[in-house]
Amino acid sequence: MLTRAEIEQAQSRAAAALAEAGIVLTPAELARVEVADFGLSDLEHYGLELVTYVNTRRTCAKELVLFPHQNCPEHLHPPFDGTPGKEETFRCRRGRVYLYTEGDATAEPACRPGRAANGAYTVWREIVLDPGDQHTIPPGTLHWFQAGPEGAVVSEFSTESRDELDVFTDPEVGRETVVAG
Amino acid sequence: MLTRAEIEQAQSRAAAALAEAGIVLTPAELARVEVADFGLSDLEHYGLELVTYVNTRRTCAKELVLFPHQNCPEHLHPPFDGTPGKEETFRCRRGRVYLYTEGDATAEPACRPGRAANGAYTVWREIVLDPGDQHTIPPGTLHWFQAGPEGAVVSEFSTESRDELDVFTDPEVGRETVVAG
Repeated sequence: MLTRAEIEQAQSRAAAALAEAGIVLTPAELARVEVADFGLSDLEHYGLELVTYVNTRRTCAKELVLFPHQNCPEHLHPPFDGTPGKEETFRCRRGRVYLYTEGDATAEPACRPGRAANGAYTVWREIVLDPGDQHTIPPGTLHWFQAGPEGAVVSEFSTESRDELDVFTDPEVGRETVVAG
Repeated sequence: MLTRAEIEQAQSRAAAALAEAGIVLTPAELARVEVADFGLSDLEHYGLELVTYVNTRRTCAKELVLFPHQNCPEHLHPPFDGTPGKEETFRCRRGRVYLYTEGDATAEPACRPGRAANGAYTVWREIVLDPGDQHTIPPGTLHWFQAGPEGAVVSEFSTESRDELDVFTDPEVGRETVVAG
């Protein structure tokens, strides 16, 4: 749960990060920057700010903003409507993002989210994305990601996005942000 | 037909335009900036410079660069492999791009490519895209576009791209760039 003021503050921070990355948004887009707290009410540590440019039955593009050290919890994109589910490519534009996905665990991962102690993070193959670097995540593949100390701006290119279908490992995590009051 | 020197010069100009737009490319991407002259050997007037980030069976993302007043000739994306064909969204990042597509003709279009005299341009519904503006082109829809006086950088989000299948209105236009010598 976030207050309206917390959401507006996060929208402003995200807009500033996008502007700093040279990304121009329309006033309408600036007004609908989405702030996701994943139901954890701890946006500084767990959250994601995003703008969806286009999302049709066939393709989707978004910009993602992560505040410094902000973490997007582990999840996967399941099949739906006869499709294999969302396939997404993350391309880092600014800052650094640490992406974790299925495969051999990295011995000394750069990120250790507090909620990992609950067993809510199960994949530990670390992929470091600096500006210009990208990685494609197949559908049905567990992944999570976290920004470095300067935050990050990431472009996401994907098939149709149905965020409400995301399957999170942490049973306390949900995709919806509840607005207080 | 372009000489190797002309291609390298166009690659450098495109790289500079992308850098000016704040878009970071890896050295490998910079080395493979594609220069398309559409078989017309007149790159200043007809051409497109592009970087393909990802192109899978399901989704594709590119950056397009147009030099000042550079024109991408009229074409459409046909069905293939049981799909309806490429659906693409153009999002202007820098400069201005004039997009022309099917629909009511604009009375006083901003662009009048020289080859229009040959009947090679048949759709004249003008859509002006400034930074932050975007437009989605359904598959099988005729379209062409041209940059304004400052050139343009455009992000393209689409389904799978099969450029070699593009159907051009102008019989003298082809998608392949032949390298001289």
